[in-house]
Amino acid sequence: WSPTTGPRTGTGPWGILERLDAGEVVVGDGGYVMQLERRGYVTAGPWTPEAAVEHPEAVRQLHREYLRAGATVIQTFTFYCSEDKLELNAQINDAACKMAREVADEGGALVAGGVSQTPCYVQSHSETEVKAIFKKQMDDFLKQDIDFLIVEYCEHVEEAVWAVEVLKTSGKTVAATLCIAPQGDMHGVPPGECAVRLVKAGADIVGINCHLDPLTCVETVKLMKEGLEKAGLKAHLMIQPLGFHTPENVECGTHILVPFKTRAMTRWDIHKYAREAYNAGIRYIGGCCGFEPYHIRAIAEELSAERGFLPPASEKHGLWGAALEMHTKPWVRARARREYWEKLLPASGRPKCPSMATPATE
Amino acid sequence: WSPTTGPRTGTGPWGILERLDAGEVVVGDGGYVMQLERRGYVTAGPWTPEAAVEHPEAVRQLHREYLRAGATVIQTFTFYCSEDKLELNAQINDAACKMAREVADEGGALVAGGVSQTPCYVQSHSETEVKAIFKKQMDDFLKQDIDFLIVEYCEHVEEAVWAVEVLKTSGKTVAATLCIAPQGDMHGVPPGECAVRLVKAGADIVGINCHLDPLTCVETVKLMKEGLEKAGLKAHLMIQPLGFHTPENVECGTHILVPFKTRAMTRWDIHKYAREAYNAGIRYIGGCCGFEPYHIRAIAEELSAERGFLPPASEKHGLWGAALEMHTKPWVRARARREYWEKLLPASGRPKCPSMATPATE
Amino acid sequence: WSPTTGPRTGTGPWGILERLDAGEVVVGDGGYVMQLERRGYVTAGPWTPEAAVEHPEAVRQLHREYLRAGATVIQTFTFYCSEDKLELNAQINDAACKMAREVADEGGALVAGGVSQTPCYVQSHSETEVKAIFKKQMDDFLKQDIDFLIVEYCEHVEEAVWAVEVLKTSGKTVAATLCIAPQGDMHGVPPGECAVRLVKAGADIVGINCHLDPLTCVETVKLMKEGLEKAGLKAHLMIQPLGFHTPENVECGTHILVPFKTRAMTRWDIHKYAREAYNAGIRYIGGCCGFEPYHIRAIAEELSAERGFLPPASEKHGLWGAALEMHTKPWVRARARREYWEKLLPASGRPKCPSMATPATE
Amino acid sequence: WSPTTGPRTGTGPWGILERLDAGEVVVGDGGYVMQLERRGYVTAGPWTPEAAVEHPEAVRQLHREYLRAGATVIQTFTFYCSEDKLELNAQINDAACKMAREVADEGGALVAGGVSQTPCYVQSHSETEVKAIFKKQMDDFLKQDIDFLIVEYCEHVEEAVWAVEVLKTSGKTVAATLCIAPQGDMHGVPPGECAVRLVKAGADIVGINCHLDPLTCVETVKLMKEGLEKAGLKAHLMIQPLGFHTPENVECGTHILVPFKTRAMTRWDIHKYAREAYNAGIRYIGGCCGFEPYHIRAIAEELSAERGFLPPASEKHGLWGAALEMHTKPWVRARARREYWEKLLPASGRPKCPSMATPATE
Repeated sequence: WSPTTGPRTGTGPWGILERLDAGEVVVGDGGYVMQLERRGYVTAGPWTPEAAVEHPEAVRQLHREYLRAGATVIQTFTFYCSEDKLELNAQINDAACKMAREVADEGGALVAGGVSQTPCYVQSHSETEVKAIFKKQMDDFLKQDIDFLIVEYCEHVEEAVWAVEVLKTSGKTVAATLCIAPQGDMHGVPPGECAVRLVKAGADIVGINCHLDPLTCVETVKLMKEGLEKAGLKAHLMIQPLGFHTPENVECGTHILVPFKTRAMTRWDIHKYAREAYNAGIRYIGGCCGFEPYHIRAIAEELSAERGFLPPASEKHGLWGAALEMHTKPWVRARARREYWEKLLPASGRPKCPSMATPATE
Repeated sequence: WSPTTGPRTGTGPWGILERLDAGEVVVGDGGYVMQLERRGYVTAGPWTPEAAVEHPEAVRQLHREYLRAGATVIQTFTFYCSEDKLELNAQINDAACKMAREVADEGGALVAGGVSQTPCYVQSHSETEVKAIFKKQMDDFLKQDIDFLIVEYCEHVEEAVWAVEVLKTSGKTVAATLCIAPQGDMHGVPPGECAVRLVKAGADIVGINCHLDPLTCVETVKLMKEGLEKAGLKAHLMIQPLGFHTPENVECGTHILVPFKTRAMTRWDIHKYAREAYNAGIRYIGGCCGFEPYHIRAIAEELSAERGFLPPASEKHGLWGAALEMHTKPWVRARARREYWEKLLPASGRPKCPSMATPATE
Repeated sequence: WSPTTGPRTGTGPWGILERLDAGEVVVGDGGYVMQLERRGYVTAGPWTPEAAVEHPEAVRQLHREYLRAGATVIQTFTFYCSEDKLELNAQINDAACKMAREVADEGGALVAGGVSQTPCYVQSHSETEVKAIFKKQMDDFLKQDIDFLIVEYCEHVEEAVWAVEVLKTSGKTVAATLCIAPQGDMHGVPPGECAVRLVKAGADIVGINCHLDPLTCVETVKLMKEGLEKAGLKAHLMIQPLGFHTPENVECGTHILVPFKTRAMTRWDIHKYAREAYNAGIRYIGGCCGFEPYHIRAIAEELSAERGFLPPASEKHGLWGAALEMHTKPWVRARARREYWEKLLPASGRPKCPSMATPATE
Repeated sequence: WSPTTGPRTGTGPWGILERLDAGEVVVGDGGYVMQLERRGYVTAGPWTPEAAVEHPEAVRQLHREYLRAGATVIQTFTFYCSEDKLELNAQINDAACKMAREVADEGGALVAGGVSQTPCYVQSHSETEVKAIFKKQMDDFLKQDIDFLIVEYCEHVEEAVWAVEVLKTSGKTVAATLCIAPQGDMHGVPPGECAVRLVKAGADIVGINCHLDPLTCVETVKLMKEGLEKAGLKAHLMIQPLGFHTPENVECGTHILVPFKTRAMTRWDIHKYAREAYNAGIRYIGGCCGFEPYHIRAIAEELSAERGFLPPASEKHGLWGAALEMHTKPWVRARARREYWEKLLPASGRPKCPSMATPATE
């Protein structure tokens, strides 16, 4: 086999909805803030995107790695970049959009401008104020050449609905993902009802991102799908989960665990996730914090038959340990097969650590 | 506190030996092949450095991240780049040296040209042939502007001695690190005797790299130090271990475990390692496979008092969780202190995985 | 403190209902078949009670240990001893009743004759046949001097209801415990409804035994209690769970895990269980497979204030590690306090074993 | 197969040395104090044997279980029963010897009187005083009908040598086991040298008991054997290890871990241990704290071909899960084979517990 650049370099103006309507599998990109923190450009805690202005070469390189790993969409590096959170918001939004466009065009990918939950919502709970903040960031995006908009990382469906209502005024396609558990949002609204409210507000694509591990997020998206079906509504489904094992996070409240790479998903975990998400009917499949380029490549490789091509970065990757075929030791060569890696339970290497954490409480 | 660029931007021609002789703590850089594999530019298995020619922007960015994290030395991306292993060796050595120099000069760092064990040694065991291979790679380096030379990743002290004997003919400073366990090299030569042989062959700096976790490598360097003291010899000590927990690797034979990030060291593990290495008298302290920029930054932060400055990337890092001080939840704020992180045993998040692996055997 | 024999040695004819009605905490005994398997008298797999006839001294000794540990009730060693399962059923029932009476009288305890689910139920599903089997075993019991009857280890509430209907014809008090999970019985009947059916059939005491760990069983009894309250019914509550950690048994189907002592509860786990059960309003608190005499003693010790006395076996036990107060090493003496043991998470000592098993499936 | 009572019921006066000289495998019994603690008759901490007088039926029953499990030797329940430790020593020694004899005679077994380390040794370090204490306890034994003597649980070889010198004056066979690690005794005397000193002092059988897990104890006995061979000495070898996993106990100092059954050996672990001990040339193979009757039975079953018979308690045991052959579920029936159990790594069931403990230090 050899990698190809795939249909996304086609000549026509294929937007996100045309692709999803045509049944194409859209691969999202991975996490930015956490990955750039490890590279030295983002501060853990605030997780804000000043690097778009301060160190554009670092952001551009990570965009390029995701593109190369098979991403159909490049998201602007604008997390938490709203007026009420970050002083330099206009400059950063501007620089981030230009950079995302530049890299996306290297591989025929789409650019998505992303907005996320605002401090203003929990402080004021004022629809007018919160909507003004979303409008301001949207206006920044609309000055640039972006393809569609994403509302993401909302814990309250109400805030996400307000965001969708604002963003729909742009005339662009709007996707909306919540960071909630199967139990529902912070006010207890179940995922099915959340999906219905978002679609009624105008969202074209709905789903889940961040906070929980891939398989739990697939479960939550399934509940959204059921809710939509019961309500007789239609929308595309999307998922961008954490790249970490989070078995304790049943209540979705311990995201502080994630800085530890000890919980990182292997590429084989991601193969399984990509297949489960696909089987659940989700067609926009990406990642959030914890996802690195090799995780996105694993999605693209698992779904290469469905997409019809392998990503460029697969030229540097032997599927399922194929590179071990030339190892000198026979018991290492014996690992060069899918069955071995699929069944593998990796050891943690930490005999004094527990398998599960006790979530902190007040 | 605020980061400074530190004394390594001084005006004089400070070489590696001048720095070590003056008692300076030299911070090495981290791993390249494994990190670039995850970014999509190196193939796992062969682990060869064609990306220096094919995707220089990716290599340059990683060099820059290590520089920014506080590295005093930038190693050329030339692992396994010997004539008998890689056809494009001359081109790659050339491009890698130029790129390392370019980035090193952005921060007043040194460039080290690295050679590693050859397939030829185990196949032919011919001193003449092996030395010719090392000479060829050295000649490539000497056409470029490099500061000193490193022999690394040798499992047989005999091959490392041959390499040192060749490289010393350049007139440059030579460092030599073996990838061995406290039990000794592949022929059973104990670490103390290995160190003696390397220094007698002309090595100015000796130590350990790769294959085992940091604290085990510190133990092995201590044995080297004892051997040198007994023999009345003097040399600087160096260490560049794996960034993974490898408790099973007592015999140094299961390096195949390392692809799993489940064993990744936390930044707090690295603080402990840096202190232990310093206390053992080691003054050239870096990392190998598994070390990422944030690990190198952790070395530079742990030893910032000794070095007199923090690295540039610390401007994006609150030491010991300081960024949590502004968290809204009191029990999260309570983690913004050194004691919390120092004592932390992270949970693996994998209840069905064992803590230790059973090494494969024939 | 010093142990006393407590009010159960009182002069009057205090039956099980008088005790529960008066608010007394009734401590059950622990497991027989699994404990006697380890001692060499019961075969794992069939788990049948021939030892009552073959090795009475071994059964008598275990009865005595439970009595000494604080048990208010001694159950006859008649598990699975029905006509359709075991040829020698009449002889065993006879011998077992006599032996239980003999030991119970050494400490003023009560004797309960126990019946459990029959092979006949799943094979024939005939109410007439199943009831005939229960009647036969009840008739065996009624020839002896027993105080009350227990239906236990039923996976189908329907079979338990049939048993209660038969046993009530004896005029004796009848307790009924199911071995089900919070999800309900094998036909999906929820715990609350199960409890209602059992009480309507005539059970005076209802609850849960075997199959799952203590805290999960407490949850299931709570659901039974809620069901009874909603239906306006009253009954005493009872619990006799496994003495093992069974976090994977969400569906109640992997009881094959229990042979491993690796999952044994510590005495401190049992203190917690006894308190939780008491707080849930349960007043008949004992154990099933995995419970040994020291576990029963831990129940009696945790609830000694409520009961007004410590069990005889506490004369050989320092509460909460009190015996460590005389240890020569100060850091061992520091463990002689409740807080230390309550918070302790014991290490498994098995670095190559996972924390949770993958349940076998077809 | 069917169990037999084996050659130990033979008519002749076969002593321990005759058996070992003839190449017979002698199976020791298991632990008493820890097992009787769980049954309610011994206090954790002091671990003293008053129950021999206070509750003889409980001690007698445990003796009988070990006999039934296949033990060739019944040890008197006289741990720590020396004059300087326990006031009632004479009475207890007397009762314990009578009871051991009585049960041993039920199955043609031997009785061994055991002495263990004295408080006097560390307090006075006086050879005269310590020897007087051992003589006193020996004299108690010699008034009864015992077959041979065991010095056990000594951390200092010097004290064990003194004990052997005293006990040899009785004319009886003397065995001596130390509770030390492969590193040596508390003064650093290596196991090989310990064995030499003990044999020179007159010990007929030497070995290891308590403090560490079976396989580590086998390693230590191997070192003893090597020491004896180098010195040209001959003696029989003996082993009675802990029945717990103690991977952290490299320095032999954390015996406080053992109260937790979470570390209990499975019967399959014991099969492996018995085979390893046999292969190392050890012919007296038993257990110490943590060994229960089913563990001793596992030794007797593993070595049944070498011994020529199965123990009586095997009539209640299907080897290697044989009883599962009649299970209704096919995937459970699939476990009725040696390979399944031999390879099994049991899950701990405790996701919040680590695999290894951090030993307490001052």
